[in-house]
Amino acid sequence: MEVLKKILIHKYDKGEMTEVDDVSILEERVSFYLNGEKVISTMCIPIDTEAHAVGFMFSEGVIERMDDIDSVRVGDDGLSVYIEAKINEANLKHLYKEKTLVSGCGGGVSGNVDSTIEIPFNENRFSLRAEYILERIGLFYKESELYRLTGCVHKAMLVFEDGKAIESEDIGRHNAIDKVAGKARMSGYEIERSILMVSGRLSSEMVVKAVMHRVPIVVSRTAPTFLGVKTAFTHGVTLCGFARGDRMNIYTHEERILL
Amino acid sequence: MEVLKKILIHKYDKGEMTEVDDVSILEERVSFYLNGEKVISTMCIPIDTEAHAVGFMFSEGVIERMDDIDSVRVGDDGLSVYIEAKINEANLKHLYKEKTLVSGCGGGVSGNVDSTIEIPFNENRFSLRAEYILERIGLFYKESELYRLTGCVHKAMLVFEDGKAIESEDIGRHNAIDKVAGKARMSGYEIERSILMVSGRLSSEMVVKAVMHRVPIVVSRTAPTFLGVKTAFTHGVTLCGFARGDRMNIYTHEERILL
Repeated sequence: MEVLKKILIHKYDKGEMTEVDDVSILEERVSFYLNGEKVISTMCIPIDTEAHAVGFMFSEGVIERMDDIDSVRVGDDGLSVYIEAKINEANLKHLYKEKTLVSGCGGGVSGNVDSTIEIPFNENRFSLRAEYILERIGLFYKESELYRLTGCVHKAMLVFEDGKAIESEDIGRHNAIDKVAGKARMSGYEIERSILMVSGRLSSEMVVKAVMHRVPIVVSRTAPTFLGVKTAFTHGVTLCGFARGDRMNIYTHEERILL
Repeated sequence: MEVLKKILIHKYDKGEMTEVDDVSILEERVSFYLNGEKVISTMCIPIDTEAHAVGFMFSEGVIERMDDIDSVRVGDDGLSVYIEAKINEANLKHLYKEKTLVSGCGGGVSGNVDSTIEIPFNENRFSLRAEYILERIGLFYKESELYRLTGCVHKAMLVFEDGKAIESEDIGRHNAIDKVAGKARMSGYEIERSILMVSGRLSSEMVVKAVMHRVPIVVSRTAPTFLGVKTAFTHGVTLCGFARGDRMNIYTHEERILL
């Protein structure tokens, strides 16, 4: 799907107004269906749509294993994703229980924020050198083509032990995380041994997504909230913020960061 | 409420790791009750909580006039807001109709995004000089104390014709807008003759909030999405982006921007 739309704008520059061509990023309502029932809609950039739906279902604990998925299909309009799968009914109900507005871009509802889903502490001893993490986030920051053209996207990237990386972009940070996690699941990457890099602030539900996907290390260029820190601490996630140049803050579980 | 929490972190700097004190911003679940029923919860910084609830109800068309509000009360925990008011039942139902994840920080559910609420075109001829807008957004960008301390907040500001301004901060852009709009309503400011300045990207539901509050001009430092532009065009909102220094882009209804 073409995600850039041409628009005509007025540019004001030092007292002069001129008409110029510009581009703007597509924002669409995409709906996720599970076994024939609509589960939720999300405002997003309609790319990586299958991965988005799959990643979201894992993030919410509704789908727990790739083997449980029979099929994933995008409708002809490109704005509907149909998943046939064995699901966790309790977690699906939980998703409907209460509307909670969450704070991060791409936000929305997360049934898991209040931890009524039992999530085991992440005992994973996966660890990496600080220098390697900073080197990789240095690459991550190189602006994406979509960002350069529109100034309007967030990016999430999973970096694996062997140096491979996959990434996704969206107008919302949450969507970007769901998309990249979905991609990893669908391609069989070992997400349990990866770093999640995100371009935005780490509020609690961003951390919850990492917890649900069993990602051991999360790195951002900016700050976590107090609840983000608490959630990471409680669930065994290593949380790094303000990772820039040769510095970063490590908020929780620094045992995974080697000197 | 004290919104900064002291935390102990590890700082990695050029190969050295040291323990240092830091602060982190509080993120809490705040619940809004309407005539005794819980309507919604939101993850936010628990300040300006009454204004937040009031602004949200106006943003969603659930409350339409300040005169319809009998009382607004914050519970002892500081995390519950109880409003007694005459409400628009149809719009309240609409809020519950379907979960739509929206993309902006502070995101969440917006019943209004799909325009099933009828919103008249904003015919308001309020206009301002481009130079004045750029001068004011220059001041807006001066970092807030919370931002300086935590790197984790968004800001929304309403600037009125007489030069007065009110502002709010939150981890979510949407919350910041709801809060500042609620403040304006509760203090009797003429929000219909103001500029809304926001620190983040303008996705559709940010524009919808401006539409619902009848704010004629919205200005951001970054970009709108295509749906944001479309929504502003359709509903008569002047949308300005990339407002920095002596330049800005005017996406819609440039007739309100004077040279």
